[in-house]
Amino acid sequence: MRRGYEDLERDNPYLVLPRRLARMREVLARRQKDLVLFLDRVKNEHNFSALIRTAEAVGLQEIWYGFEEPYEAPINVGVTLGAHRWVFLRKTEDPRATLEDFRNRGFQVVVTWLGAGTRDFREVDYTRPTVIVVGNEVEGVSPELLPLATHRIMIPMVGMVRSLNVSVATAVILYEAFRQREAAGLYERPQLSSSEIEAILRKWAYEDVLRQRRKK
Amino acid sequence: MRRGYEDLERDNPYLVLPRRLARMREVLARRQKDLVLFLDRVKNEHNFSALIRTAEAVGLQEIWYGFEEPYEAPINVGVTLGAHRWVFLRKTEDPRATLEDFRNRGFQVVVTWLGAGTRDFREVDYTRPTVIVVGNEVEGVSPELLPLATHRIMIPMVGMVRSLNVSVATAVILYEAFRQREAAGLYERPQLSSSEIEAILRKWAYEDVLRQRRKK
Ligand SMILES: C[S@@+](CC[C@H](N)C(=O)[O-])C[C@H]1O[C@@H](n2cnc3c(N)ncnc32)[C@H](O)[C@@H]1O
Ligand SMILES: C[S@@+](CC[C@H](N)C(=O)[O-])C[C@H]1O[C@@H](n2cnc3c(N)ncnc32)[C@H](O)[C@@H]1O
Repeated sequence: MRRGYEDLERDNPYLVLPRRLARMREVLARRQKDLVLFLDRVKNEHNFSALIRTAEAVGLQEIWYGFEEPYEAPINVGVTLGAHRWVFLRKTEDPRATLEDFRNRGFQVVVTWLGAGTRDFREVDYTRPTVIVVGNEVEGVSPELLPLATHRIMIPMVGMVRSLNVSVATAVILYEAFRQREAAGLYERPQLSSSEIEAILRKWAYEDVLRQRRKK
Repeated sequence: MRRGYEDLERDNPYLVLPRRLARMREVLARRQKDLVLFLDRVKNEHNFSALIRTAEAVGLQEIWYGFEEPYEAPINVGVTLGAHRWVFLRKTEDPRATLEDFRNRGFQVVVTWLGAGTRDFREVDYTRPTVIVVGNEVEGVSPELLPLATHRIMIPMVGMVRSLNVSVATAVILYEAFRQREAAGLYERPQLSSSEIEAILRKWAYEDVLRQRRKK
């Protein structure tokens, strides 16, 4: 089988089968560069992993996670099913500075918040450049991040429970953003430049081949 | 404190504080008797529990789960945060018969299906009596249940991953059902009869008091 790859390499610098390469291109053409997810101290491995998988499925390319102290991303590959490989997973030890930076670059910061001054999540216009901030399983989003919020949002609930699971809440919001962006045609024109696409493709294809080889 | 409860009992047969009782009544007035969730062999405790929590939050009262062999509901109370106590959790060892029974009672059976003949989940009218069927983490919904489907639905995805986590997919569908039902005014008039409400209230209140006492 090694020989097969060498043959392929001659015609195809990316080393992956043409069908797979076409799929990667299709996916990258729909990536939403200006829709970003920010996880504030999400610690449970199952939640963290399900979150990445959903974000990847709706076309996010960039996911940030913040911890004050050094902390590794709690990834469970049985739950991400590989999704963590298809996005840029970025860590910050200074969540405030990271969000401020997004604001300076013209992003609205949409913070999930179960307290006062919050509005229905469907009222926000997610077609604008947006960072969505979700919070820790027990404490929610840190109050220190609130001053950076352009909007505070909440998903309505009519039961006895007081909150949703964080991976569930994030999915509901991301699918609303997806719906709005699709209606606005944002999935029809590529947001990544062709050089960005080629750079990501090389990385994806390279890692894909490494994985294939390792499996043998 | 035991004495406190005895005092209360005289004025309030339900034994819970008036504010809590009022909240229970409010929640029951919004329960959607004709929106039911059916879990086909969902085995992961985190998924199962997050699912119940979401279903409770959007006002479901009845959740079925099916396994061919005897199998206990895999509940993690750290994830449900008590939600499993506020719904009827019903088990069946014959999923086909259970779904057939729903069809005979006028319910549409909406099956999540990633294969052929499936439509966008937003195209379905969830204001009708509906059972939503979601499937096992690895195998999805059993093909044996397909003949019972009124509709097969799928949530669109534009990434490299081929499916969503089951608790995430269910939440996205349930919130679409919630949205449609709210727009149609279905949360404004109680669906449970007053005798059903009183029966559930007695059970909830009784269990609530037991829990309070146990905590002391
Ligand atoms: C379990 S909740 C945290 C609950 C915490 N007691 C609080 O008050 O924020 C964890 C995260 O899930 C998200 N979340 C849960 N329920 C939500 C809802 N109804 N609306 C918006 N976000 C929600 C938020 O990102 C929240 O920070
Ligand atoms: C991880 S999926 C199962 C994947 C399985 N390989 C299949 O083809 O069905 C587990 C369950 O999540 C739900 N699910 C996952 N992604 C979905 C999507 N895009 N649309 C609808 N339901 C989905 C379905 O209920 C499915 O049975």
